[in-house]
Amino acid sequence: MERRPVRLADLAAQCGGEVVGDPGVMIEQVGTLRSAGPREIAFIAHPRYRGDLAATRAGAIIVGEADRAATRLPRIVCRDPYAAFARVSALLNPEPTPAPSVDPSAVIANGAEVAPTAVIDALVVIGAGARIAAGAWIGPGCVIGEGAAVGPGARLHARVTVYPFCQVGARTIVHSGAVIGADGFGYAADGGRWLKIPQIGRAVIGDDVEIGANTTIDRGAVEDTVVEDGVKLDNQIQIGHNCRIGAHTAIAGCVGIAGSTTIGRHCMIGGASMIGGHLSIADGVILAGGSTVTKSIDRPGTYVGVIPAAEAREWRQMVARLRGLGRLGERLRELERRLRERGGGA
Amino acid sequence: MERRPVRLADLAAQCGGEVVGDPGVMIEQVGTLRSAGPREIAFIAHPRYRGDLAATRAGAIIVGEADRAATRLPRIVCRDPYAAFARVSALLNPEPTPAPSVDPSAVIANGAEVAPTAVIDALVVIGAGARIAAGAWIGPGCVIGEGAAVGPGARLHARVTVYPFCQVGARTIVHSGAVIGADGFGYAADGGRWLKIPQIGRAVIGDDVEIGANTTIDRGAVEDTVVEDGVKLDNQIQIGHNCRIGAHTAIAGCVGIAGSTTIGRHCMIGGASMIGGHLSIADGVILAGGSTVTKSIDRPGTYVGVIPAAEAREWRQMVARLRGLGRLGERLRELERRLRERGGGA
Amino acid sequence: MERRPVRLADLAAQCGGEVVGDPGVMIEQVGTLRSAGPREIAFIAHPRYRGDLAATRAGAIIVGEADRAATRLPRIVCRDPYAAFARVSALLNPEPTPAPSVDPSAVIANGAEVAPTAVIDALVVIGAGARIAAGAWIGPGCVIGEGAAVGPGARLHARVTVYPFCQVGARTIVHSGAVIGADGFGYAADGGRWLKIPQIGRAVIGDDVEIGANTTIDRGAVEDTVVEDGVKLDNQIQIGHNCRIGAHTAIAGCVGIAGSTTIGRHCMIGGASMIGGHLSIADGVILAGGSTVTKSIDRPGTYVGVIPAAEAREWRQMVARLRGLGRLGERLRELERRLRERGGGA
Repeated sequence: MERRPVRLADLAAQCGGEVVGDPGVMIEQVGTLRSAGPREIAFIAHPRYRGDLAATRAGAIIVGEADRAATRLPRIVCRDPYAAFARVSALLNPEPTPAPSVDPSAVIANGAEVAPTAVIDALVVIGAGARIAAGAWIGPGCVIGEGAAVGPGARLHARVTVYPFCQVGARTIVHSGAVIGADGFGYAADGGRWLKIPQIGRAVIGDDVEIGANTTIDRGAVEDTVVEDGVKLDNQIQIGHNCRIGAHTAIAGCVGIAGSTTIGRHCMIGGASMIGGHLSIADGVILAGGSTVTKSIDRPGTYVGVIPAAEAREWRQMVARLRGLGRLGERLRELERRLRERGGGA
Repeated sequence: MERRPVRLADLAAQCGGEVVGDPGVMIEQVGTLRSAGPREIAFIAHPRYRGDLAATRAGAIIVGEADRAATRLPRIVCRDPYAAFARVSALLNPEPTPAPSVDPSAVIANGAEVAPTAVIDALVVIGAGARIAAGAWIGPGCVIGEGAAVGPGARLHARVTVYPFCQVGARTIVHSGAVIGADGFGYAADGGRWLKIPQIGRAVIGDDVEIGANTTIDRGAVEDTVVEDGVKLDNQIQIGHNCRIGAHTAIAGCVGIAGSTTIGRHCMIGGASMIGGHLSIADGVILAGGSTVTKSIDRPGTYVGVIPAAEAREWRQMVARLRGLGRLGERLRELERRLRERGGGA
Repeated sequence: MERRPVRLADLAAQCGGEVVGDPGVMIEQVGTLRSAGPREIAFIAHPRYRGDLAATRAGAIIVGEADRAATRLPRIVCRDPYAAFARVSALLNPEPTPAPSVDPSAVIANGAEVAPTAVIDALVVIGAGARIAAGAWIGPGCVIGEGAAVGPGARLHARVTVYPFCQVGARTIVHSGAVIGADGFGYAADGGRWLKIPQIGRAVIGDDVEIGANTTIDRGAVEDTVVEDGVKLDNQIQIGHNCRIGAHTAIAGCVGIAGSTTIGRHCMIGGASMIGGHLSIADGVILAGGSTVTKSIDRPGTYVGVIPAAEAREWRQMVARLRGLGRLGERLRELERRLRERGGGA
C-alpha cells in the first residue's frame, strides 16, 4: 500500500498529543514495537509491553503520560495512546477514494437513483427504486434490492446483499458476504407443518456502523429491525428479526441474538455469546465471550457465563462430580439428621 | 410495499375464522397491537398482550375463543390466532411474481435447461446440464453448478450457491449467501498430513424447505446429505456431510450439526445449539437453545444444556465452587468416617 | 459424475496395498459397505462395521491386516484402510480440470496478471495488480481484490472474496462464500464512541490449505494474519486478525478464534469451540467440540469444556444444585464445626 511521509509534529497535531524529541522525524507508517522500523511509529498502551521499548527500532513512539520518560526516542505524549494510534494510523492510511464511476458491467434497474458522486463497482446489481447516496461506494458483486437505500459515504465491500426496502446509514461500512434484511425466522405451527409469516418489516442500519464479513441482520416481521448509530459488529454475527441494537454498542464475532431482543447503548458483547429472544439488555452491559443469556439484564455491569475448558481427565471428573451433586446433598442431609438425633440424645 | 385493501369477511374466510363486528371493515396490512392503525389488523395469541388491547388503534383484531369478548373492535375469532395471522398476512402480502424472463446479463451454459416460466435475474451463472424448473426464481448473483436442479416454484434470493449435481426441491426458499453442497470436511490422517476424501455425494433439499442467510449444507462424502420436506432452517446454520434432517423440523440460527447425524421429524432445535457427529435424534425432540448434544437422543421430550450467564462475581464464585467439588466430597467423606467411628464408640 | 473403471490391482498399487482375491475386478466408484454395488469398492476402518461385511454387495473391500480374512470378497489389505480409501477415491474421482480460459463475462482490471493456464469463470472480478498463478481456477462470481495473489493450482469455488493484497497459496481450495482478508475488529474507545483502527496487515494463506464455505479470515491490524501450510478449515469458522494457525492443524465447523491467538501445528480443534484472544495453543493439542478456551494451553493433550445436554428436568435440577453449592458448603462447614465442638467435649 502507498506511503506518504508525515512529520511527527503533524501526527501529534492530529491526535492532540505533545511532541517530545525531534518534531521533524518523518513517519510513513504505523508498526508494532517489535516490527517497526525507523520510518514507522509504534505505541505503548499497556505496561506489559514496556519491555519491548528498549529494543524497538521504531522511529517514534506514542506513549501515555506515565511513559513520558520511558524512552529516549522521539515521541508523542498523550492521554490515550491507543486512541491516538487510531488517529495517527487513519492519517497515514487514508481510505482509498476512487473517482465517481459506474462500472459498465453493473446492472442498474430503471428508476434506481445513483448519486453522481457514488462509485458502483463491477457486476453490482441495483434494483428498481433503490437509492445510492452521494459518495457511497458499492463494491463488486453487491446486490442492492428494490427500494433499498444506501446512505452518503457508505462503503459496501464485495458481495454484500441489501434486501428490498432496507436501509444502510451514512458512512456505514459493510464487509463482504454480509446479508442485510433476509426474512426473519417466523412460522406458525399448523397441524405439524409450518406456516410462513411474511416478514414485512425492514432492516434499518444507522450511521457510522460497521458490519463484519458474513454477518446477517434479518428484516423485521411486522415492525423494523434496527441497528442504531455507531454500532460495531464483527464477523458472522446473527441478529434476529425485530432486534434493536443500541447506539455505540460493540459485538464481537460469532454472536447470535434471537428475535425481538433489545440490546442497550454502549454495551460490549464478547465473541460467541448467545442471547435469547424477547429479552432486554440494559445500557452499558459487558458480557464476557462465550456466555449464554436467557433472561433480561436490567442493570449495567459485567456478566459471565462460561466454564473454561480443562485437561480432559480433570474436566470429566468435574462433570461427574457435578452430576453426583444430588447424591452429595443426600449424604449431607443424612449426616445432619444423624447429628441432630445424637444432639437430641446427648 | 404495495397495499390492496381486503374486507374483514374475506380475511376471515381465508383463515377459517368467524367475524364479530363489522365484516366490511377494509384492511390493508397487518400490524402489532401497539403499531397498527385503522387500516391494519393485529392479533393476540398470548394473554400477556391483553393489556395492549385497550389502547390499540388497530382496525380489527384476530383473537382466540378465550378473547372473543376482550375487545369491541371488529374481530376474527378463531382457534389459533397466530396461524390465522400467518394466513391473513400471506393474503395481504403476496409474494411478488415477476414475469418470466432471463436477464441478458445471466451466463447460462449450453445444455442447461431453464423452464420458460422461470425467472433468471441479473448476473446469475447456470452450469452445463443444470435444470431450472417451471416458475422457479433465481435471484441476482446466484451460481447454480453443473448438473444441479432447482425445483418448480423455488425461490433463490441473491447470491446463493448450489454446487454441482445438488438438488433444491419445489417451492423451497433459499436466502442470500447460503451455500448448498460444498465439500464435507473429510480427511484421512496420513503421516502428519491430511489426505482429502473426495466428497462425491450430493446435498438434496426437499420441497417446501426454507434455508436462511449464510447457512451451509455440505454434500455427502459417499452417499447424500438430505434435508427432508418442510424443514425450516434459520441463518448461519452449518449442516455437515451425510446428515439427514427429518421432515418439518425447525432449526434456529447459529446451530452446528456435525457429519453423519440424523435429526428426526418434527423436532425443534434452539438457536446456537451444537450437535455432534454420528448421532441420532428421535422424532419430536425439543432442544433448548445453546445446548450441546454429544450422545444420541432416542426419546421425544425437551432437552437442555445451558447454564445461563450471571453477574461476574456470582459466576466466578460458582465456577470456583464447581472446581472445589472434589475437596467438598473429601470433607464429606471425612465427616462420615468420623461419625461412623463415634457411632461405633457410642 | 463420470466413471472410468480401474482394475483392483491398479487401485492397490495407488494405495500401497496387497490384493487378495481376483486382481482383475473392475471398480468404477467407492461406496459404503451398505450401499456399494458390484462395481464399487468399500472399506472397513473400524471393527464396529464388521457386521456389515457379510451382507455387502460391494465388488471389493479395503481392509486392514486384522480383517485380512474377514471376507471372501476381492480385497486390498493395507496398513491404514481409511487413508487407502482416500487414495483410491481420489484416483476414481479426479478433480475436473477445465481447459484454460477466461470467461468473456469476467471483469479483469488493467494490470492484473492472469497466467495463461489459469481458468477464470463467469462473472469473476479481478482487481488491478492482482496475480492469478498457473493452473489456478477461479470460480464464478469470485472477487479478487487489488494486489491480491492466488497461487498455482489453487481452486476457488463460486463466490469467494479475497480482499486487496491478501495471498492464497498453491493448491489451496477455498469454498463458496469464504471471505479472506476483511478488516479485523479493531477500535479504540474514545469518549463513548469507537475509533476505527485501520487494518493494514494482510491475510496470508499457505499451500495445500482447504477453507470451508462461509469461513472468514480477517486481515491483520498491523502485521499479517497467517494460516500455515496444510491447514484444514471447515465451514463457518471465524479467524480474527493477527491469528496464526500452525501447519497441518484441522479445525471443524463453527469455531471462532479471537484476535492475536496462535494455534500450534498438528492440532485438532473440535466444532463450535471458541478460543479467546491473545492466547497461545501448543502443538498437538486436541480440543473437544463445543469447548471454550480462555487461557493459553502450553502442553499437548486433550482438552474438554462441554457439559452435554440432558433431559430438561434433570438438567434444571443439576443447575439448581450447582447454584446451591454455596449453601451446601456452609452446611458442611457447620457440620464440621459442630463435630469439632463435640469432639472437644468428648
